[in-house]
Amino acid sequence: MNRIALLLVLAAAPAFAADPSPVPYPESYRGWTHVKSMVINPGHPLYDAFGGIHHLYANKKALEGYKAGKFPDGAVIVFDLLEANTGTNVVQEGARKVVGVMHKDAKKWKGTGGWGFEGFKGDSRTERAVGANAASACYACHTQQKERDFVFSAYRK
Amino acid sequence: MNRIALLLVLAAAPAFAADPSPVPYPESYRGWTHVKSMVINPGHPLYDAFGGIHHLYANKKALEGYKAGKFPDGAVIVFDLLEANTGTNVVQEGARKVVGVMHKDAKKWKGTGGWGFEGFKGDSRTERAVGANAASACYACHTQQKERDFVFSAYRK
Repeated sequence: MNRIALLLVLAAAPAFAADPSPVPYPESYRGWTHVKSMVINPGHPLYDAFGGIHHLYANKKALEGYKAGKFPDGAVIVFDLLEANTGTNVVQEGARKVVGVMHKDAKKWKGTGGWGFEGFKGDSRTERAVGANAASACYACHTQQKERDFVFSAYRK
Repeated sequence: MNRIALLLVLAAAPAFAADPSPVPYPESYRGWTHVKSMVINPGHPLYDAFGGIHHLYANKKALEGYKAGKFPDGAVIVFDLLEANTGTNVVQEGARKVVGVMHKDAKKWKGTGGWGFEGFKGDSRTERAVGANAASACYACHTQQKERDFVFSAYRK
């Protein structure tokens, strides 16, 4: 490789390096601590993205983070979104729409507040809804919560 | 004590013995596994008793029970009922209304399917909503579920 070709390779490298590290599927999250829940109905501004009933779950490190207001590396928060099946004066949980994940690692996801963001479609552990779009699809909105380490939810006692 | 008085005491004893053993407050249940949730709205036949958003939590033995269809002694299921605060196209969790408990012990609560039933009012660990009325206030309805060891809920994956 001559010097010019080497420089071209080096110049291109940061673009590859900037691709976010993939966020792992949060195995066994259904056994983690339930943080809180909410129902988002048709007509709500977030309905298209988050309509249904959602539950937030936290692993042990994320629980520490909720208490401290700052989340350590290894903290994982799951946003488990299910269909909200409305019956006669009742709302029941339906099929899973997406398993949203925030995974903290200050180095790995430096460009998005130290958080890796991903969504796993339905009950799939491999179909990714966010991928390389975390900055625009997730982080852009979460920046509002910078004072709370980019997290919207709070632990409900 | 003469023989007649003794017989009267013995005759009265079973009435005292039949009082159900008090169900302990389920310490740390918020860290147990979340089983499922539901919202019950005004107009529902169960609204007066269970209106709001409720979450079910299971300790480890109760989780085994959900899988096996039969619950071992020591299994505890919590029915955590919160106000459902309805906003514009959104339902959020409000104040706690009651912490309902089913606690399995085949001997202690023999008269009510092996389950002790209790409700702790709001955030209180001591104010009891059921007390000695478990048979009529809880078990009468749970008998419908005899085939499932008197449990209505099922673990939602």
